Amino acid sequence: MTTHPWHDTTLSAADRANALLTELTWREKIQQLVSVWPGAEGASGDVAPMQSSQNQAASFDAAIVDGIGQITRPFGTTPIDPTDGVARLAELQRAVMNANRFRIPAVAHEECLTGFTAWQATVYPTPLAWASTFDPDLIHELGARIGTDLASVGVHQGLAPVLDVVRDHRWGRVEETLGEDPHLVGELATAYVRGIQSAGVIATLKHFVGYSASRGARNHAPVSMGPRELADVMLLPFERAVIEGGVRSVMNAYTDIDGIPAGADRDLLTGVLRDQWGFTGTVVSDYWAVPFLASMHKIAADNTHAGRLALEAGIDIELPHALGFDERLANDSEGRRLVDQATLRVLTQKAELGLLDADWQPQNTGDRIDLDSANNHNVARQIAEKSIVLLRNDDHLVPMTNAPHRIAVIGPGADDARCLFGCYSFPNHVLPNHPDLPIGIDAPTVLDALRKEFPNSEITYVRGADHLDCSTDDVETAAQAAVAADLTILVIGDRSGMFGHGTSGEGCDVVDLRLPGGQEVLAEAVLARASQAVLVVLSGRPYAIERFAEAATATIQTFFPGQEGAAAIAGVLSGRVAPTGRLPVQVPGDNAPQPSTYLAAPLALNSDGVSNINPSPAYFFGHGLSTTIFDTSQATANTTTISTDGTVEVTVQVTNVGLRAGTAVPQLYLSDPVASVARPVRRLIGAARTALAPGESVEIVYTVSADLASFTGRDGTRQVEPGTIILTVADSAGDPGTAVEIDLTGPTRSVDHTRALSTTHAIHALVP
Amino acid sequence: MTTHPWHDTTLSAADRANALLTELTWREKIQQLVSVWPGAEGASGDVAPMQSSQNQAASFDAAIVDGIGQITRPFGTTPIDPTDGVARLAELQRAVMNANRFRIPAVAHEECLTGFTAWQATVYPTPLAWASTFDPDLIHELGARIGTDLASVGVHQGLAPVLDVVRDHRWGRVEETLGEDPHLVGELATAYVRGIQSAGVIATLKHFVGYSASRGARNHAPVSMGPRELADVMLLPFERAVIEGGVRSVMNAYTDIDGIPAGADRDLLTGVLRDQWGFTGTVVSDYWAVPFLASMHKIAADNTHAGRLALEAGIDIELPHALGFDERLANDSEGRRLVDQATLRVLTQKAELGLLDADWQPQNTGDRIDLDSANNHNVARQIAEKSIVLLRNDDHLVPMTNAPHRIAVIGPGADDARCLFGCYSFPNHVLPNHPDLPIGIDAPTVLDALRKEFPNSEITYVRGADHLDCSTDDVETAAQAAVAADLTILVIGDRSGMFGHGTSGEGCDVVDLRLPGGQEVLAEAVLARASQAVLVVLSGRPYAIERFAEAATATIQTFFPGQEGAAAIAGVLSGRVAPTGRLPVQVPGDNAPQPSTYLAAPLALNSDGVSNINPSPAYFFGHGLSTTIFDTSQATANTTTISTDGTVEVTVQVTNVGLRAGTAVPQLYLSDPVASVARPVRRLIGAARTALAPGESVEIVYTVSADLASFTGRDGTRQVEPGTIILTVADSAGDPGTAVEIDLTGPTRSVDHTRALSTTHAIHALVP
Repeated sequence: MTTHPWHDTTLSAADRANALLTELTWREKIQQLVSVWPGAEGASGDVAPMQSSQNQAASFDAAIVDGIGQITRPFGTTPIDPTDGVARLAELQRAVMNANRFRIPAVAHEECLTGFTAWQATVYPTPLAWASTFDPDLIHELGARIGTDLASVGVHQGLAPVLDVVRDHRWGRVEETLGEDPHLVGELATAYVRGIQSAGVIATLKHFVGYSASRGARNHAPVSMGPRELADVMLLPFERAVIEGGVRSVMNAYTDIDGIPAGADRDLLTGVLRDQWGFTGTVVSDYWAVPFLASMHKIAADNTHAGRLALEAGIDIELPHALGFDERLANDSEGRRLVDQATLRVLTQKAELGLLDADWQPQNTGDRIDLDSANNHNVARQIAEKSIVLLRNDDHLVPMTNAPHRIAVIGPGADDARCLFGCYSFPNHVLPNHPDLPIGIDAPTVLDALRKEFPNSEITYVRGADHLDCSTDDVETAAQAAVAADLTILVIGDRSGMFGHGTSGEGCDVVDLRLPGGQEVLAEAVLARASQAVLVVLSGRPYAIERFAEAATATIQTFFPGQEGAAAIAGVLSGRVAPTGRLPVQVPGDNAPQPSTYLAAPLALNSDGVSNINPSPAYFFGHGLSTTIFDTSQATANTTTISTDGTVEVTVQVTNVGLRAGTAVPQLYLSDPVASVARPVRRLIGAARTALAPGESVEIVYTVSADLASFTGRDGTRQVEPGTIILTVADSAGDPGTAVEIDLTGPTRSVDHTRALSTTHAIHALVP
Repeated sequence: MTTHPWHDTTLSAADRANALLTELTWREKIQQLVSVWPGAEGASGDVAPMQSSQNQAASFDAAIVDGIGQITRPFGTTPIDPTDGVARLAELQRAVMNANRFRIPAVAHEECLTGFTAWQATVYPTPLAWASTFDPDLIHELGARIGTDLASVGVHQGLAPVLDVVRDHRWGRVEETLGEDPHLVGELATAYVRGIQSAGVIATLKHFVGYSASRGARNHAPVSMGPRELADVMLLPFERAVIEGGVRSVMNAYTDIDGIPAGADRDLLTGVLRDQWGFTGTVVSDYWAVPFLASMHKIAADNTHAGRLALEAGIDIELPHALGFDERLANDSEGRRLVDQATLRVLTQKAELGLLDADWQPQNTGDRIDLDSANNHNVARQIAEKSIVLLRNDDHLVPMTNAPHRIAVIGPGADDARCLFGCYSFPNHVLPNHPDLPIGIDAPTVLDALRKEFPNSEITYVRGADHLDCSTDDVETAAQAAVAADLTILVIGDRSGMFGHGTSGEGCDVVDLRLPGGQEVLAEAVLARASQAVLVVLSGRPYAIERFAEAATATIQTFFPGQEGAAAIAGVLSGRVAPTGRLPVQVPGDNAPQPSTYLAAPLALNSDGVSNINPSPAYFFGHGLSTTIFDTSQATANTTTISTDGTVEVTVQVTNVGLRAGTAVPQLYLSDPVASVARPVRRLIGAARTALAPGESVEIVYTVSADLASFTGRDGTRQVEPGTIILTVADSAGDPGTAVEIDLTGPTRSVDHTRALSTTHAIHALVP
């Protein structure tokens, strides 16, 4: 029996793919560039934007004739028991293999933003909570756990992480991001990519690029942005995840930047991604982003024209099913060249995944599948615990080592497990279409967790208001409960959902940052009358809560902390868990403008009377209190002068001089006091998360390459200019901290796009 | 006696300037590039941003040694009787002439945004009200009136008009603009420029460019914008005012675009303005924009460095006084070349103005100066009357030909003349620093005008609430007055002022579009209880008034209509004046995002559930009801196909089929259903304001060059693409109207920057 060269595992993936490519008809090639969505037509309710207006024309069987590139969401479309899902996916794969001459299976892709978006799978904290941990190692572990679960059921590609840098807190998808700093986003996304890909599953960077800056914070709206902001803020994390993370797939953004839709932007999808960064994986379209080039952007006359534009720009695979990619793509020689190129990328990836191996068979051992393992719980718990941010803590109320006698728990977030989850969790994403089903995982609410944490306290609960409804009928009852209690725990914020089903999440954009529904009235009444109150903000975005935080004794900000999150909150209150999270987005002031984030030039941040609007936040990016006290030494540098291609070491000692264990997160910021273009007042270039027992002391040495001082200059290239920079170790973007001035000498130096743009740090224990 | 060549009026201005230039020392040259601000140090209160932090170092006498380029605001700094002002300016000019060897006088500049910003001068409507007239001829007349007044007192340059295209209604300076459409802005600004320059006074385009798109609508904040939006939206009106208007001066914007401050942007101030558009006048800095390059933008190490950057970019004259421009500019050969170039421009302009004539003497006849003439009143009245927009008119309430018996006039805008004026009017700009002085002009309030208009009605007045204060103490009294009346006239909106002294105006930016102060509570209470109410919105920006307009029977929107404005409002209510204004900015819906204007791609305007936020306005751009009925015929075109350099004529007949006289403003919109970049759903390219008696009929023929279909393509050049365009004659941006489809054939054609980009129209009376 002849071994076909594409089965030959001694050849490179590219050679195997090339060999197979030459055998395929144009129809077979184009089939490799599209996906099929089994069961989408039978699903109740949309799980993607305008799904009902973009129906898949063909049945599954018709769609897979001559093969298919991908299978869309075999687990995430409707609830299926994971064990049954594996069997069903295997069946689908067998049908795919039987329907094409070369028995090429499909890549199965799934959502996995807060964990695998499947029924009975662990719901981890949302990415904004990961970002609050400032802990890349932990996020690597999270990625590995998610990858392992995806791989265990035969899924090859996960549609995460989200690398959109927050520019406007009103945007519904803020909860899905890693915050407003590109360094932090890049660092954590790279860790996640490495983690998930370590399990053999392809990560997908999204949304490439600009989406988070959509005008007026409206989902899909156009983006106004110039090339410098694009390069230095929006592209930077993607660059790191490609170059440092080795990611294998990228998804385009729905939006346009300055009139050019990302899905039809060759400069972006090919010029930047492949030519500049050397990316060799696949580019997948966001769902219906191809037909949207015609229907939404109106830069194509019809879907086929849209398909051609997308393919020309560099989209290799159309998701979630074929609307724009069809055989007409191969009508001319340029089209055929492009189809060959995309097919080669797809087949290369299939070879890498083992899908071209002669003995590949769909997984289906019949073993019971557990997507909610103890290992998962452990990681979910760690992230939840490390993500909780103590914003304010008057009278050292937290931790409450003496449990209050009577506790009033108030608020619509207090006894609703869905309020712990992001919009891409299965319970919030799909289960609202299946109201009769249980959520399939164990997820204590905040109220449950408080009852467990404070077993001897008398706990009353009043919901008080709703997230969506503005009724204030129950406010007085809630206020009375607060009056009657020694301590009130007010849990407000968001309930995440998709497209109008929540107050945060995809499509759930807002016009201002006032608390949704009846919660402002509730908070005002309860906080005015509670003798002592802890405000717990359980949200997907920061809200304008300054006046409420001032009225409460202590305030905790937590971004959807997942199924282990309620226990983590309760643990912080009791002292079982030290609060160690830091804000990855600033909490705006009550009269602050939007869009507005910390990463901005002096002109954006000055509050000297030139505008009635004060951009100063209520709580700065990077802020988070501890329940112990850290003493940070004056920063020192190993040199005061380096060349524009040099490296400097910045050192501080941090000592826990308090009485409790805690975690310091000294952050390293770079300022460029005079530059040839307007630069941010400060930008994060490093952070060293360090757990310290009372009395313990460490030395932290940050190694900073002059590359980190680079930015896109007037000529459009990235460069390091000579001149002074200031490196500040600080507890937040607003903390004066301790600084060193470094002179960069020598010529302006170009910094290309092949090197890592990260700071490293070493932590050395000091003997007291 | 020898005639110096610079005195020789037979030579060209440039030759005269050149001859003088060769005689000047570097110190004398640089003195021509700066201004002096007499009396600023003694003025109470700031009239410009951060004035107190940017003190003029030298006394007037010290500042003018060796000459001076300009004199800053001789009339607008502190109140001075115009006749006295002329004498004082003459004295200043004599001092300037005596202080330099060649007796070169200064150019005196002044603000003139809503008329000459001087005590006792006519306060015209604010530019947003001019824009509501859609009447370029009238704005030309306004410019001529203002120019004549400026010239009459010896002022040579006026710092107007504002060509910033509105992008965010929250910005405080919306009232100073000509609205959200670049065609309309360009058309009216060009008319104003021609008008003011017809009186021999230099107009100054401002703010070049980007200012109105500042992030979060904060005054001075950075602008995120790409090159296509910049060219097609922001630059377009400036281009028209340069090429079609022949303007002689341009002022830079404070802000940066994508990190490059306009004041240090050579591509903009020299590349676009001079090299591309052929501008030959002077570029003046906005007040302190030069030192702000150091202190605010941090792209310069100090003021001298800032001066050098500004000069290199193309700023010729530093206003309002010398901080960055000093002798160090001439320290090297490139600096000397730049100083020579700027000085030549300044001296050329002085030659053009007659200031280099041997017999030039400061004006000072001692004649009584009247800056508030009957001619002025006439123009002010016409603009006011034509600017009033009838948004809604249930039950044909307006006009009230039968005067109501009992009228309740309610609201903080009803009896305050300052509420009729923009922030650059002398009463709002300077007089708040001089509370003891009378406003110096006759300006009846709305209450005064209503009493005059409805002499037989019993009119009660309750203020009810405040613009700034949120107290609701008087709301109940107001509501009771409404109950007791047959008709309630509720006058709400803004009181304009500078930097925190108002709710609209420079620095008075807002975070959302809810009515300021206690007015929402007032409106809710009064409109719920009034039997019949007219809502009069007297504001500097559109507000989210949808629910109030729905609660009222009729609603009028008027942007500060000036000293004749109250009578115009009253006249519209009584029927003495026909409502003929059209919205130059849309009125947003109550849950609309910001920034958001009508001029946007489909992605920005769709309301199909992809976002909770609905971008649909409450009242569309271009909307305005009449009290008569117009019948518009189906549009026809003289051809269905033109080449990409062709011209098409679009014709409609409009007939007044109602019973009252009125004015139709049929607007011509262009749509490009499929283009290579995302294009606005519709954009205005023409409007034909046509007064029609009952039964009268006209034919309107719009002549549209294919140039009007041009936009900036992916390669950055302006081009006309072949394909179909749709030309629609409609009553607003949201009116389906009547359309013709035109096929553009031939190659994609480049459209350079030397030609007019305007539509013309002809109106022919039709015999019935």
